[in-house]
Amino acid sequence: MGDGVAVVGAAGYGGAVAAAILHRHPSLELTAVTARSDAGRRHDELYPRYRVPLELQEFDADGIAEQAGSAVVAYPHGAAAPAVKALRERGLKVVDLSADFRLDRERYERWYQAHAAPELIDDAVYGLTETHRDEIRSAELVAAPGCYPTAALLALWPLRDHLTDVVVDAKSGVSGAGREATQTTHFVSVTENVQAYKVEGHRHAAELEQELNGATFTFVPHLVPVEQGLLASCYVTADLGGRDALDLYREAYEDEPFIDLTAEPPGTDDVRETNRCRIHVATVGDRVIVLAVIDNLWKGAAGQAVQDLNLMLGLPETEGLE
Amino acid sequence: MGDGVAVVGAAGYGGAVAAAILHRHPSLELTAVTARSDAGRRHDELYPRYRVPLELQEFDADGIAEQAGSAVVAYPHGAAAPAVKALRERGLKVVDLSADFRLDRERYERWYQAHAAPELIDDAVYGLTETHRDEIRSAELVAAPGCYPTAALLALWPLRDHLTDVVVDAKSGVSGAGREATQTTHFVSVTENVQAYKVEGHRHAAELEQELNGATFTFVPHLVPVEQGLLASCYVTADLGGRDALDLYREAYEDEPFIDLTAEPPGTDDVRETNRCRIHVATVGDRVIVLAVIDNLWKGAAGQAVQDLNLMLGLPETEGLE
Amino acid sequence: MGDGVAVVGAAGYGGAVAAAILHRHPSLELTAVTARSDAGRRHDELYPRYRVPLELQEFDADGIAEQAGSAVVAYPHGAAAPAVKALRERGLKVVDLSADFRLDRERYERWYQAHAAPELIDDAVYGLTETHRDEIRSAELVAAPGCYPTAALLALWPLRDHLTDVVVDAKSGVSGAGREATQTTHFVSVTENVQAYKVEGHRHAAELEQELNGATFTFVPHLVPVEQGLLASCYVTADLGGRDALDLYREAYEDEPFIDLTAEPPGTDDVRETNRCRIHVATVGDRVIVLAVIDNLWKGAAGQAVQDLNLMLGLPETEGLE
Amino acid sequence: MGDGVAVVGAAGYGGAVAAAILHRHPSLELTAVTARSDAGRRHDELYPRYRVPLELQEFDADGIAEQAGSAVVAYPHGAAAPAVKALRERGLKVVDLSADFRLDRERYERWYQAHAAPELIDDAVYGLTETHRDEIRSAELVAAPGCYPTAALLALWPLRDHLTDVVVDAKSGVSGAGREATQTTHFVSVTENVQAYKVEGHRHAAELEQELNGATFTFVPHLVPVEQGLLASCYVTADLGGRDALDLYREAYEDEPFIDLTAEPPGTDDVRETNRCRIHVATVGDRVIVLAVIDNLWKGAAGQAVQDLNLMLGLPETEGLE
Repeated sequence: MGDGVAVVGAAGYGGAVAAAILHRHPSLELTAVTARSDAGRRHDELYPRYRVPLELQEFDADGIAEQAGSAVVAYPHGAAAPAVKALRERGLKVVDLSADFRLDRERYERWYQAHAAPELIDDAVYGLTETHRDEIRSAELVAAPGCYPTAALLALWPLRDHLTDVVVDAKSGVSGAGREATQTTHFVSVTENVQAYKVEGHRHAAELEQELNGATFTFVPHLVPVEQGLLASCYVTADLGGRDALDLYREAYEDEPFIDLTAEPPGTDDVRETNRCRIHVATVGDRVIVLAVIDNLWKGAAGQAVQDLNLMLGLPETEGLE
Repeated sequence: MGDGVAVVGAAGYGGAVAAAILHRHPSLELTAVTARSDAGRRHDELYPRYRVPLELQEFDADGIAEQAGSAVVAYPHGAAAPAVKALRERGLKVVDLSADFRLDRERYERWYQAHAAPELIDDAVYGLTETHRDEIRSAELVAAPGCYPTAALLALWPLRDHLTDVVVDAKSGVSGAGREATQTTHFVSVTENVQAYKVEGHRHAAELEQELNGATFTFVPHLVPVEQGLLASCYVTADLGGRDALDLYREAYEDEPFIDLTAEPPGTDDVRETNRCRIHVATVGDRVIVLAVIDNLWKGAAGQAVQDLNLMLGLPETEGLE
Repeated sequence: MGDGVAVVGAAGYGGAVAAAILHRHPSLELTAVTARSDAGRRHDELYPRYRVPLELQEFDADGIAEQAGSAVVAYPHGAAAPAVKALRERGLKVVDLSADFRLDRERYERWYQAHAAPELIDDAVYGLTETHRDEIRSAELVAAPGCYPTAALLALWPLRDHLTDVVVDAKSGVSGAGREATQTTHFVSVTENVQAYKVEGHRHAAELEQELNGATFTFVPHLVPVEQGLLASCYVTADLGGRDALDLYREAYEDEPFIDLTAEPPGTDDVRETNRCRIHVATVGDRVIVLAVIDNLWKGAAGQAVQDLNLMLGLPETEGLE
Repeated sequence: MGDGVAVVGAAGYGGAVAAAILHRHPSLELTAVTARSDAGRRHDELYPRYRVPLELQEFDADGIAEQAGSAVVAYPHGAAAPAVKALRERGLKVVDLSADFRLDRERYERWYQAHAAPELIDDAVYGLTETHRDEIRSAELVAAPGCYPTAALLALWPLRDHLTDVVVDAKSGVSGAGREATQTTHFVSVTENVQAYKVEGHRHAAELEQELNGATFTFVPHLVPVEQGLLASCYVTADLGGRDALDLYREAYEDEPFIDLTAEPPGTDDVRETNRCRIHVATVGDRVIVLAVIDNLWKGAAGQAVQDLNLMLGLPETEGLE
């Protein structure tokens, strides 16, 4: 089995960033990148600024196993599970960016579809490093969280034992919708527009409920005319028993390498193309307002995947990410 | 006293749109436009696409009174009150776009500053047409609501007797911050950025509380990289006594000429450069989610001012606005 | 035959604006709108802000002929010719927004494809009002110019007898690429990007050469992150025989209702959603620099089509366009 | 004298990027950053995503000389010369980002103002690495080229002995206009707008003429709604004596580490936040079209400054820039 790392699905936005980060990672070698419709083209033709000088291959599990001992899979939901299964069967450690291994089977099949590799679900660790670090270290399969849950969970985690009611009003840049050209992602549809979607229920809310069981969540995503960036504005009713909310955040995050507590509301531009999450906490009347920004392709996808991979491979958690 | 209409402060964004609308109004004649620092220049030099072929004058109440019987005042807070007073003393009907006459004196002086013309506050009618139509018809001084309160109040009005707790997460385009060049409005600060501000208290919330007394409000404004447009996403806990929320909106707004109830979440682009407010209502679990979009310079400022003026002058409410 | 006007292909950007303009035209009645893939939906569902309350029909020439005596056809190149032919056979006056009738047959078939209705080419008048006004008045079929040629021809027309060498560096907003969702029109591809395309030859250059025969043209289009707007920067070597370039523009355009000569370089935003062309002329050394801006969907497509239609129907040229 | 590197004027966009690059440079240590109006604040408070954890100091040449042996000066034109002089007197090697040392005195004083340190002009080397590499190695004072000349000179250099007439139509992102908040840089002025400026003569053209003497230049800059990025579209008449234009570029640039010759027209987004220049060459008829893209803050300012500094300090040219 190869020593390198492969990125499966490196033509999409998340996979492309994963390839870019891994290509310049000081301790890992990116040895293979695959793509479904763009196979045969070079990665740096599709994404010149990332400068990854590799040809995109067709997916072939045996071939990848010869070149790599671990992989980041960046396929869409549903397509990921069979690829992950094939790689796991050949012994590769895998971080999967899709939703296929984030939820228990019941939640998954309610929000998505019949699961193609249900036998692997129990092995998968939810890859939010800040909340599952030790499990990730020993995992062979990690499911990187969705971009919305990443921001929202980091915003809410320090209050997890105190939450009663939570509204998450989330705003995401367009890269979060993926590289597929649709009416929704057309420049003319996006520019000069701000719009909510899936008001009655977004499957990312299922991740919140699974990870923060007990509270009531109202989660509404919005699309904003931004390329990369995500802001989760959280309006929290909590019973803190006299504790100061900000103190709980300081305690929870004081040693976290990628989390900043900020004195002012953070902007998405402050974390663009970084793996950081910046969080601002304010108490206004009876409500705690928590604002968390990430780059949806970095901490919300590829950066987090590399953070997971570092842990799984025994490397320093921040390597290649600063 | 002249028959025409004047716009005082027509070099700012709100005043410029007011001038544009009035210039092509079928029943009103725009006879004077003033500006503070741009006096002497032509309006269509500053705003070519609005095509208002008038020279911007220095403000002179006597001169304006000769040219106009009514005026839209589009000065900043604090500067407006003396101008309004001078015009009212000369008998003009006035719609003021500033906050100077929106609030009772106590609220105003808490959020803004000492009031320069407190004796006029009681005469002023709050200019949200949909909720104060009859008072506006007979008013001589109307205070047009702020852009945020316009969207939020229209979003919440049909539930006004049932509200217990309301979160308003509002997103505004940059024109709402005015024409002054600041670090905040610099293109480089705005693009690729989404950011909350004034989390601990925005003075626009005072308008919400005054108009919708009884409920608890959490109001957080956000700046998004959009030129014109405002979305108020409202998360409402209400006791509807078994009523269907959407029915309340249908009853309240069925005859409103500028309000659309939409089957899908509305985008700000759907109302750009119109005087419309589009509202979507969804009930999710115990919460009512109400999404309202306006153009912050039209229904949130100048369009609404003309709607008010039409009523004050006995004209059809929609004239010049369709 | 009906009295109204139809828009064939009203779901695309150009056709949608044509429908919007015609719907509020004081002398014309928009009686039918058609669409290929969106038939059955209402126009104001696709384009809420245009507020055209008509259902999009399947194209049916007989049905349209019952409802309309004239039509704007806004189909893509190739698809337009058969539709135009069917409408002409039923006696309708037609303005076609496609390239199908702009060029002589040889030029058309070199740049596009075999022509589906070559017998109509000779009847068609090139619809640049400022240069073919009288022919348009008596035409039954008008081919509205492309957006790039509109700006470039208006920029160059007053120098047409003096040109020796011309570079046109043109910048277009994304709506010019049409409503189809492609990798090129994806928000992520467009934002933060400026890029030339078809450097070795763009078919719009054929229109320039046909209309301005004799000069050498270098024409390079660029895509910029703008929704609507087009700037043609023209670098002209000309033999003016001692004439002042600006004088030639003043003479040529002094009575033109939609052309402004500006003292400063015009911005595309100055003409957004107007039918105007603003032109700035500067002589620097031996070169004349001419900068012309239009809204590619208005003067570059739908606005110009209505300007043509007004002339064809004996109406004032500017009606419905101001 | 200190071993480190200082950035003087690190609160502006160019200086901020210089600080960011130097802070993570493997062989250099950023030891001091200064600012005029923001002194006392931390750099990472102004620019969170660059993560430079230093406090901005007031400029003090003696203090800087204790902390640093070289400096990048990123002051505006005019303000730079005295600072450069003070640092040179204390023995520091300096790369200056302003125009103060780019031009001979006559050209400088024609386009800018009286020179504050004319005695240093002759010592200064023009810092376009690709064309002055050897001089830069031994220089103590380097004047980094302007962003426009960088792109245009790299686009034209391989043809320098053959040029007869050149049109440069350049498009720049807004960061090129600097951090100062003006009406020109206001988001509302920039978005949905493309506009030429300084048509009759831009001082950056003086750099072109000085470096490429002999040809006639027409240079017109345009502002586009982009944060970082610059495209120079060059339309060249040249006498190549039968040589293929592209061959000349291949010969000139085959060993250049930061220049790519591309098969397709490059987009500014392809080089965003890189020190690269991507160039496309096409011959169309008698004209050579050369399209060159850079990031105006990187290769057009701070990246190039570090490239210069690397050479001046005997380091590998690309260090810290990949």
